[in-house]
Amino acid sequence: MAAAQPKPLAGAAVVRRLARGCWSAFWDYETPKVIVVRNRRLGVLYRTVQLLILLYFVWYVFIVQKSYQDSETGPESSVITKVKGVTTSEHKVWDVEEYVKPPEGGSVFSIITRIEVTPSQALGTCPESMRVPNAACHQDEDCVAGELDMLGNGLRTGRCVPYYQGASKTCEVSGWCPVEDGASVSQFLGKMAPNFTILIKNSIHYPKFRFSKGNIADRRDGYLKHCSFDEALDPYCPIFKLGFVVEQAGENFTELAHKGGVIGVIINWDCDLDLAAAACNPKYSFRRLDPKHVPASSGYNFRFAKYYKTNGTTTRTLIKAYGIRIDVIVHGQAGKFSLIPTIINLATALTSIGVGSFLCDWILLTFMNKNKVYSHKKFDKMADTPGQSTGQSLPASELPRLDSTPTDPRGLAQL
Amino acid sequence: MAAAQPKPLAGAAVVRRLARGCWSAFWDYETPKVIVVRNRRLGVLYRTVQLLILLYFVWYVFIVQKSYQDSETGPESSVITKVKGVTTSEHKVWDVEEYVKPPEGGSVFSIITRIEVTPSQALGTCPESMRVPNAACHQDEDCVAGELDMLGNGLRTGRCVPYYQGASKTCEVSGWCPVEDGASVSQFLGKMAPNFTILIKNSIHYPKFRFSKGNIADRRDGYLKHCSFDEALDPYCPIFKLGFVVEQAGENFTELAHKGGVIGVIINWDCDLDLAAAACNPKYSFRRLDPKHVPASSGYNFRFAKYYKTNGTTTRTLIKAYGIRIDVIVHGQAGKFSLIPTIINLATALTSIGVGSFLCDWILLTFMNKNKVYSHKKFDKMADTPGQSTGQSLPASELPRLDSTPTDPRGLAQL
Amino acid sequence: MAAAQPKPLAGAAVVRRLARGCWSAFWDYETPKVIVVRNRRLGVLYRTVQLLILLYFVWYVFIVQKSYQDSETGPESSVITKVKGVTTSEHKVWDVEEYVKPPEGGSVFSIITRIEVTPSQALGTCPESMRVPNAACHQDEDCVAGELDMLGNGLRTGRCVPYYQGASKTCEVSGWCPVEDGASVSQFLGKMAPNFTILIKNSIHYPKFRFSKGNIADRRDGYLKHCSFDEALDPYCPIFKLGFVVEQAGENFTELAHKGGVIGVIINWDCDLDLAAAACNPKYSFRRLDPKHVPASSGYNFRFAKYYKTNGTTTRTLIKAYGIRIDVIVHGQAGKFSLIPTIINLATALTSIGVGSFLCDWILLTFMNKNKVYSHKKFDKMADTPGQSTGQSLPASELPRLDSTPTDPRGLAQL
Repeated sequence: MAAAQPKPLAGAAVVRRLARGCWSAFWDYETPKVIVVRNRRLGVLYRTVQLLILLYFVWYVFIVQKSYQDSETGPESSVITKVKGVTTSEHKVWDVEEYVKPPEGGSVFSIITRIEVTPSQALGTCPESMRVPNAACHQDEDCVAGELDMLGNGLRTGRCVPYYQGASKTCEVSGWCPVEDGASVSQFLGKMAPNFTILIKNSIHYPKFRFSKGNIADRRDGYLKHCSFDEALDPYCPIFKLGFVVEQAGENFTELAHKGGVIGVIINWDCDLDLAAAACNPKYSFRRLDPKHVPASSGYNFRFAKYYKTNGTTTRTLIKAYGIRIDVIVHGQAGKFSLIPTIINLATALTSIGVGSFLCDWILLTFMNKNKVYSHKKFDKMADTPGQSTGQSLPASELPRLDSTPTDPRGLAQL
Repeated sequence: MAAAQPKPLAGAAVVRRLARGCWSAFWDYETPKVIVVRNRRLGVLYRTVQLLILLYFVWYVFIVQKSYQDSETGPESSVITKVKGVTTSEHKVWDVEEYVKPPEGGSVFSIITRIEVTPSQALGTCPESMRVPNAACHQDEDCVAGELDMLGNGLRTGRCVPYYQGASKTCEVSGWCPVEDGASVSQFLGKMAPNFTILIKNSIHYPKFRFSKGNIADRRDGYLKHCSFDEALDPYCPIFKLGFVVEQAGENFTELAHKGGVIGVIINWDCDLDLAAAACNPKYSFRRLDPKHVPASSGYNFRFAKYYKTNGTTTRTLIKAYGIRIDVIVHGQAGKFSLIPTIINLATALTSIGVGSFLCDWILLTFMNKNKVYSHKKFDKMADTPGQSTGQSLPASELPRLDSTPTDPRGLAQL
Repeated sequence: MAAAQPKPLAGAAVVRRLARGCWSAFWDYETPKVIVVRNRRLGVLYRTVQLLILLYFVWYVFIVQKSYQDSETGPESSVITKVKGVTTSEHKVWDVEEYVKPPEGGSVFSIITRIEVTPSQALGTCPESMRVPNAACHQDEDCVAGELDMLGNGLRTGRCVPYYQGASKTCEVSGWCPVEDGASVSQFLGKMAPNFTILIKNSIHYPKFRFSKGNIADRRDGYLKHCSFDEALDPYCPIFKLGFVVEQAGENFTELAHKGGVIGVIINWDCDLDLAAAACNPKYSFRRLDPKHVPASSGYNFRFAKYYKTNGTTTRTLIKAYGIRIDVIVHGQAGKFSLIPTIINLATALTSIGVGSFLCDWILLTFMNKNKVYSHKKFDKMADTPGQSTGQSLPASELPRLDSTPTDPRGLAQL
């Protein structure tokens, strides 16, 4: 590019000389020239700013936030649950098989605490529930045959019939009869429910760090037969009384048992894998998960039925079950030393420590009473006078003169 | 290390003087010496590059990507669902209890839209299904007694018997008889299914930011009784018509109801927690989740049975159910201002702004017509001539001479 | 601020001149003055350190760790499972409907391999199980009427009655009778279980990158009817034999079938989305999830019942099922090129490469035999002598003298 060579040399020789020059220059060591200002106040300020930044990084970023670690959230988790206990309602004894749904012992299950039973339903015709909109009627003309109300219990036959109790009348429907609202009987199972025990077996695995752990103590004696959970004494005995769970979630058991609700058992595995495996322990917390303060939708219930066949006709017992649903939620975060985040944070720290000099330069060049002098020393100004660039090495006297106008570039120019 | 002191001093005094010197030097302020080039074109270029980099960081990194925030993905989530509606098949009325499986109201449930019923199965012997490989036979010798085909319906007895209909014969099996393929009756429940309503109660919790929110409006009136979901008008009424869900997922309802399928209702909670809690709203989206374009495995169905005991013998009604499975998937990301990512990104911004000077230095030293002059000014060369290092402060004349060869180190040497 | 102007000028003129000066200075280009040290050893060291840092970043950070990518973990996932197979116990054939619970084909299901059946339980009174603490008795006084043991089977009636077999006596309870321990019969279903096939349909979606994929080959022929999983040959045929799954998890099938257990089928979708979609493949792994080495809680079982009504009285068959629970766990991480992480890592790389000069400066100023000379060249010292700051441009002779004390600030002062 700069081909205008004053002396007529062969092209190859020029290129060779240039390459040799470049190669030699490549192995030169370069270091910026530094102005040392012997000002104790500025020095103290500079070092203090550096110290504060350093402290922030060492203490907050590295010690508190553990930014030198690579992290993984959301471990693979497996939950097995088992409920034990017996309770009684008015005229019946209930065991686990009856009040826990679904029975498979997964991470989400319901403990039924109150039921509304509609026994002996069969397919047939009967009066519609009073609660269904437009179900009340005075004569057959009020009921449209073949109408299917989405909130109702069946297909309207077009007749208006007397209700189960009282003097009112509702449209007749074809479906499972009698309808729930007309014939259901309530039973409360929750009397002994606070004493039910829930065993929660949980094992987690962090695939990135190949780390696995479970929440049960590895003891040979019949440990799990006698123990019960105690955060301080028995953290590795995950057997919880239902009453304890509800109390920890800050709920009133009787109210919850009547209306139903969802309680989250949250198991948190926050692990610093730079430490020993024994330092990675599960933390349990309990929280009401359904929106109990929203009046429109509080509580938890569901319906299921048992089907029977007698003498060729199918009947069913419909059960509306209110209960405490337990959601076992496992989450966690594991961290382990890793080079990349360490280096990113170290580089950030170095860059940030350098930021202190912006501040000090600005003070030096603006507020110090000799700022013109400092400015003169720091900034070596070169006017861009057009002309005589000869391409030869210039004698010092011919160098562009130092522009020593005392204009102070300051912070603006610095950034 | 530099122990060769010219004047004979006591060791302790030397150390003391050295320490004092170091201590004093520690409080000096150092700032790099800077060459100011009065070239308007270069200055404009330099500032433009800086401005572009600054703009990129301020606009894209900080405003668009919100890199000043710490983030958390995967909130703890609890889902309660409830389906309402009545439908009819050829000769029967179906209510929620019958067509929703499992009934507990969790985040995954199926709405049965078509069934193939095999009534009155009992343990016994009967002809194997034609669809089972190697089931067809001509004589008893074709059937191996005691054989158990994994895709079949029972243990072969070794006899060849006439099929349920037609003139063909299949091997006899011992198992639940008659087999499904021989005796099942199809019923379509999906006629009214698009009008079913699904209530999805969802509450989430971001543990890192201690933020919780639900998807139901907190209103005292019987709000949920009358409303239905509308993204613009009623975003906090999570009651969806099944037809709406299927339509939003881009599927044909009748086809889906016949073959079955899985629809995901995805609730996305993307929250900027630097804003008010009211700005954190759920976004619903609907997507077909099973691979409908893969012919080998399209559709969704499962089998269940109801068991009856009449006169001591157990019979069952086997039901192959095709349905729409709804998977409620909750995900989200919350962000909140945090010091560490802010500082990392600021430090990156500062470093990147400095990158502009690489470019300008290269232009300055290569293309500017006075590049030798600039190079001379910028680079203060020191030849490493061996010899006379006396350890004393040298007079300026004795300093190693400035090597002013016009070799230009340029970008290579700069980096 | 520096209002003490020597010449009396109008204020406006001063401000205008100052502003013009600042504006002009803003467009100056500044570049640090650099000392070039012609020392081959130092140069080689400097370049080597730079090269090592560069190699680390290019190879480890960018190529191995793919730090130029934005990543997303935890894809949205949908799992449909279907088990096929027939097995026999002592006197009965079992099909899928009977041994898979729950039947809906979700991501968690149990394959029952052994059952303990207690047939014909009815509500009534009978002796309590011997295993219940304090159930053994000698006379009626040992049994407290109305007592409800949480680990028992019912409400104590207060009578002491002979046990089912043997000569001992236990307290009588009111509940579902006879109790399980007195009347259960064991049946083993696991004989053919290793041949059961499990089809796992899984499709995932990374919302950040709008990328979806399934784990089944898109082929028109009846592919899924004949194939079986083979990591090398048929990775897109997700049909697994139960025996294969158990073997891959490193377990003994017979033992597992007797005591029950939980096997995780982990599907891992690690995808580099900068490559073609075909490069994003699922990886299957199999792991025992329940803590089999913890004696207190090994195995997996649950209880369920079938209810019958005959002649008005309800009876049930209680089944304690031991089985292999399959948990299909889907996780994964997708990465795609993104500007922000790229720039953060590049900026870190640049900063880190600069770190090499700290080392070299320290060597230069400490160990090189001419260190005083280098120090003198590099550090331009300014004593902070109080006094004569005139605010005018000073002639060179009046500049603060260069402090040439040979104190060497070295590394300490450098940082």
